[in-house]
Amino acid sequence: MDKKEEYLKLANQIYELDEKVYKASGSNLGKTFTGEKKRNVSDLMMLIASNPQGHLLRREIALIGNMARSIRNKEVRRDLMREYNEIVEQIADLPMALGSVDIVDKDLADMNSSILSKKFSEEDHLVICISRSHGSAGTDIGFALAEALHINYYDESVLNQILNRRDEKEFGTEASHISTFNRYHGLSKQDALFFRQSALICELAKKEDMIVMGRCADVVLAGQHIPHISIYITAPFGVRVRRMMELKNLDLKQAISLVRKMDHKHQDYYHSYTGRHWGDAINYDLCINSACYGIDESVELIGRLINRQTKSIRKKAEEKAEEKKETDN
Amino acid sequence: MDKKEEYLKLANQIYELDEKVYKASGSNLGKTFTGEKKRNVSDLMMLIASNPQGHLLRREIALIGNMARSIRNKEVRRDLMREYNEIVEQIADLPMALGSVDIVDKDLADMNSSILSKKFSEEDHLVICISRSHGSAGTDIGFALAEALHINYYDESVLNQILNRRDEKEFGTEASHISTFNRYHGLSKQDALFFRQSALICELAKKEDMIVMGRCADVVLAGQHIPHISIYITAPFGVRVRRMMELKNLDLKQAISLVRKMDHKHQDYYHSYTGRHWGDAINYDLCINSACYGIDESVELIGRLINRQTKSIRKKAEEKAEEKKETDN
Repeated sequence: MDKKEEYLKLANQIYELDEKVYKASGSNLGKTFTGEKKRNVSDLMMLIASNPQGHLLRREIALIGNMARSIRNKEVRRDLMREYNEIVEQIADLPMALGSVDIVDKDLADMNSSILSKKFSEEDHLVICISRSHGSAGTDIGFALAEALHINYYDESVLNQILNRRDEKEFGTEASHISTFNRYHGLSKQDALFFRQSALICELAKKEDMIVMGRCADVVLAGQHIPHISIYITAPFGVRVRRMMELKNLDLKQAISLVRKMDHKHQDYYHSYTGRHWGDAINYDLCINSACYGIDESVELIGRLINRQTKSIRKKAEEKAEEKKETDN
Repeated sequence: MDKKEEYLKLANQIYELDEKVYKASGSNLGKTFTGEKKRNVSDLMMLIASNPQGHLLRREIALIGNMARSIRNKEVRRDLMREYNEIVEQIADLPMALGSVDIVDKDLADMNSSILSKKFSEEDHLVICISRSHGSAGTDIGFALAEALHINYYDESVLNQILNRRDEKEFGTEASHISTFNRYHGLSKQDALFFRQSALICELAKKEDMIVMGRCADVVLAGQHIPHISIYITAPFGVRVRRMMELKNLDLKQAISLVRKMDHKHQDYYHSYTGRHWGDAINYDLCINSACYGIDESVELIGRLINRQTKSIRKKAEEKAEEKKETDN
């Protein structure tokens, strides 16, 4: 069958399915294709041949599908949906069809260990980088996630503690500060620390599963081609302010000023080490609005994304208490 | 047991676990707590009593946990991890403990039907609002998701077609344009259309499961307190440009100008109807970087998010072909 015949056949199938679906659904909006059959089939054929990825063909298909799904009679619906699915599959097989030009960026995808269809080498670990805005409970979510997944947790404080202890081991308590300067002379203290933290993050990511909070870890790891998942957690400004008021016992003005100050600090830090705009959805594999989910549900959500069972410790404890209460009664 | 005794006991438990974990792991970084036991326990007690949500207590706990997970001997590790988990649970039970001040915003959470722990009424439907940047394959992902979930698909083109057909039914072919103006006199054509589309989206969301693309549908539905999930799909500028070159057969300059123009158009549209900045992670439940995942994996990812099995039609067809090939051989 040559292309032209094939397209004509497909166009006819679509036209005829529309008629059948219309009859079965009794849609009060009428058929998708009105007017003369010959003209409609010829228009459809043009769409199929010239522009199968375009919105016009998608619209006709979607309208028929939407109508077909509304058919009350179960058997009729099943039969017509089968026909519909066959048509969608045929369209998907066309050159340049709906979605045939994929968006995937090989470099990004190769580093993303949440992609289930990719096989990662045995040596790759589950490394989850979490950036978060102040007050978004991102830190709590990260810690709870590490507990739920039984993997290690590193934030600025933990990383620095490890670096300090290494220094102490190597140089003794007193010499630790001097050594930092000696080894990175010419760099500011902040820069020197950033580079040491970055090296430590890469070292850890090569040998264990872990969560790492902030520290531009996603960009650092991407630079070393170490697979990882990057997640950004934020929440609306007002919700974060409210949370900081409660958490730190601040008044509204203090909380606003704190959240604003920390946002600026994060922004500057991220921008100065990555050249990127902090918090742009574009920089992360995934962004989560924690105000929608709360801490426990965010943990479960991330767990589902990486296809692992996760239940936060707090939730487990609650359930245990609940069970105990039921047994006691 | 009064609070002080309880905190002292917990501080002792933490200190002793650190000793045991250090011995069992032989960490070359040494114990988390160095120096005199009495001072350490007293410091810990202060942290527990005054600031259990702070980063200092979290740091100590995380360091011990990370070390414990590295213990080679399986039984020893299991025993010490059990002790560790009990301590974390105890801390989680403290007033104002790690993550005890949740971030969840009731209004947002009540509308998010991807939250598994919430029970939605039988009358609530699965409504997924997808915003996307031009070239991010968001439309293809949305359409493939609708097919995979067997739910209806609406984009601008489909919505307008429905509105046009209603007009035709009511006023005949000729009168459709006039009627729009008559009914919304005083509004621009774009505004009139926006309000008609919004009303239609709300009407549909009340009676069926569906995907709706763009049209600020998330904001429109939130305004009417209709449960829905809002997802933003984007990809780095360069990746989107490359895709448009391939898809539309454009040269680099044309593709850059197209993507830039469409981004501005989207931005203006979203801002004028919502007052928000388009593409800010903060406005959505979830943002996906499609360049990491590609079309099929994005569909599966969203499926996992809402806890439904999804496989894109294209992938199913591929698998079918694969099976056939294996049978043929």
